[in-house]
Amino acid sequence: VDKRTGLPVVGMVGAGQLARMTHQAAIALGQSVRMLAETSDDGAALVAADVVVGDYRNLDDLRAFAQDCDVVTFDHEHVPTEHIRTLAAEGHKIFPGADALVFAQDKAEMRERIEGLGIAGPPWRRLAPSPSTAAAEVLEFVGENGWPVVLKAIRGGYDGKGVWLVDSLEAAQPVLHSGTPLIVEEAVPIKRELAALVARSPFGQGAAWPIVQTVQENGICVEVLAPAPDLDPETAERAEALGLRIAAELGVVGVMAVELFETVDGDLLVNELAMRPHNSGHWSIEGARTSQFEQHLRAVLDYPLGTTTPTAPVVVMANLLAGPDDVEPPGIDERIHHAMAKWPDVKIHLYGKGFRPGRKVGHVTAFGTDLDEVRARARAAADYLTLGGPHD
Amino acid sequence: VDKRTGLPVVGMVGAGQLARMTHQAAIALGQSVRMLAETSDDGAALVAADVVVGDYRNLDDLRAFAQDCDVVTFDHEHVPTEHIRTLAAEGHKIFPGADALVFAQDKAEMRERIEGLGIAGPPWRRLAPSPSTAAAEVLEFVGENGWPVVLKAIRGGYDGKGVWLVDSLEAAQPVLHSGTPLIVEEAVPIKRELAALVARSPFGQGAAWPIVQTVQENGICVEVLAPAPDLDPETAERAEALGLRIAAELGVVGVMAVELFETVDGDLLVNELAMRPHNSGHWSIEGARTSQFEQHLRAVLDYPLGTTTPTAPVVVMANLLAGPDDVEPPGIDERIHHAMAKWPDVKIHLYGKGFRPGRKVGHVTAFGTDLDEVRARARAAADYLTLGGPHD
Repeated sequence: VDKRTGLPVVGMVGAGQLARMTHQAAIALGQSVRMLAETSDDGAALVAADVVVGDYRNLDDLRAFAQDCDVVTFDHEHVPTEHIRTLAAEGHKIFPGADALVFAQDKAEMRERIEGLGIAGPPWRRLAPSPSTAAAEVLEFVGENGWPVVLKAIRGGYDGKGVWLVDSLEAAQPVLHSGTPLIVEEAVPIKRELAALVARSPFGQGAAWPIVQTVQENGICVEVLAPAPDLDPETAERAEALGLRIAAELGVVGVMAVELFETVDGDLLVNELAMRPHNSGHWSIEGARTSQFEQHLRAVLDYPLGTTTPTAPVVVMANLLAGPDDVEPPGIDERIHHAMAKWPDVKIHLYGKGFRPGRKVGHVTAFGTDLDEVRARARAAADYLTLGGPHD
Repeated sequence: VDKRTGLPVVGMVGAGQLARMTHQAAIALGQSVRMLAETSDDGAALVAADVVVGDYRNLDDLRAFAQDCDVVTFDHEHVPTEHIRTLAAEGHKIFPGADALVFAQDKAEMRERIEGLGIAGPPWRRLAPSPSTAAAEVLEFVGENGWPVVLKAIRGGYDGKGVWLVDSLEAAQPVLHSGTPLIVEEAVPIKRELAALVARSPFGQGAAWPIVQTVQENGICVEVLAPAPDLDPETAERAEALGLRIAAELGVVGVMAVELFETVDGDLLVNELAMRPHNSGHWSIEGARTSQFEQHLRAVLDYPLGTTTPTAPVVVMANLLAGPDDVEPPGIDERIHHAMAKWPDVKIHLYGKGFRPGRKVGHVTAFGTDLDEVRARARAAADYLTLGGPHD
């Protein structure tokens, strides 16, 4: 408890954009998020009062950080599971706990657990460490499921990293030889990707936002359409229930995103789990009565959860992915001027990061009633802010 | 410019709740507000990365603070006008400038200027420093306008401080003898109080939010109803135009609130001016597409202004005024639990302040379509958070 305010102190391991936006939400709740940053220039460290620089892989750094926190949570999933167990055994409140978080850290354990719950995912198998054995396993898998297949690093992937779509053994070989523990999955033919965003408190209260559609380019999310357009209400309800059930079965505390494939037949397959605020929920900052960041804080503090009702019929979030270096747009400050002038109703979010090519440096959110119009507006604002003009 | 982000640095003199909420808005714009705080425990200092402790009455402190800011603005109106002039003369960008801000600092100069523009206010006069001369002036004023009258400190008043409603010379005497430079105003019979909230950029762009009704108790704002209920559209338009005209005539840069009296005849009288984000605009954080805090930043940076469209038909803000010490409500953390459980759709804002009796420690905002219902919800949540139960 912060003696100056009488309010609890939430510690967040990691100080990227998720911590930055969580801190923003915490300010309204009278709090100030304590962060374990990698460097003092991390996006969230630039805007927060209570920043500790340390190594999230180092148990002593984690211990020192957790010392005066009422609860510790995460901006990313890379803290070693055993350290989380150790801190919990030493009496620290950590949410989500290791027994839940491991299913967001380890894709093989997640697949096994989800299957065990009778919930559908793509066909998959774990690959042996030996490249030659793995190659034989891939060929056997392809015999049943066909090319192409998806190779995934069991731990550590994100934003398209650690995921390889391959259509031949030749293409798979460098990945199989990389030494990374892998699984192979069928490249399921899908209609589109959806996400179910839910929150759960230690008490067990659950809350679900409307199901959204996520639009990917090169494995990176570029747009989120909220709610998912033309989603039949029964499927939407099924997807929300799925999210809430997984959160309950796995004992998740905090926000969880379930990335889903909607197949051409209208089936839902679990693709990935993320146990923290997630890119698919950034639209909720202005687009829902309670944002995912406020909700994550409420959940880890075991506060009652807030209403998830949308504030507009259609909300579209577009990520700002910094343009290539050979494009020389006007300076960011000039681009902001023009974007604000042209789209006075689009909300701009910048993460305090340098504009390195391809880097996710912010997002924009647009609101309205007509999906095509709102999406075009969000897209145009995002392109202007990153490229200085329209996308090719 | 912050070299880590390429974005401008806004400095705010003062680190109270207005700076706290401005910082929250700045985070989305990729910025981090630099604050000149009185102490490191000020509400905004608890949540911001870039805090300087110093005295806003001391020119050297102000100079050092302004050094690397792209623009300096204010959380309150108490910085000596001559210091603002000096800093501007030394090349610092300061908004609002001294020539505008003086009309929010000095009630006599404001009254003269507003009259000079042909804009109506209550009958008033400046009082002489000598208590006996002032007493004669009050009696003369009362001869024309009748009792009661309002005595106002020319500088430094806020939230009911520096304002005395008196109905006899006897009641006026202690104020006249206090040594405070004063004006006297007629206690105009009014229907209600309204506020026109506008923003203006150095370029001259203006933006107005819908006119709101402010509800006062003991001279302190307790509720804001947005938009002002049953306000005839012609009067609403007149009030918005009045706000924009005053901002333009006075050369205001940033957000300005014009506190207005609506007389029983539907006339509008200017009561006070505030040149900064204002309590009457807190509803805009979630209740308008662009909040007054984001807009203030946009304005002082000469960014294009954002859309002021409301996000719900009815928005009600209720201030959290800490209850008396002899009431022993459950602890604040428990009160938050209960309020969140009962009103999951009410937004809670806490300012990082201790709950001293009568102190403005936060606010809540409720949304909906029916004014009575929304107002009752906001009131109940505010009472629960401050008193632990319903207001008497």
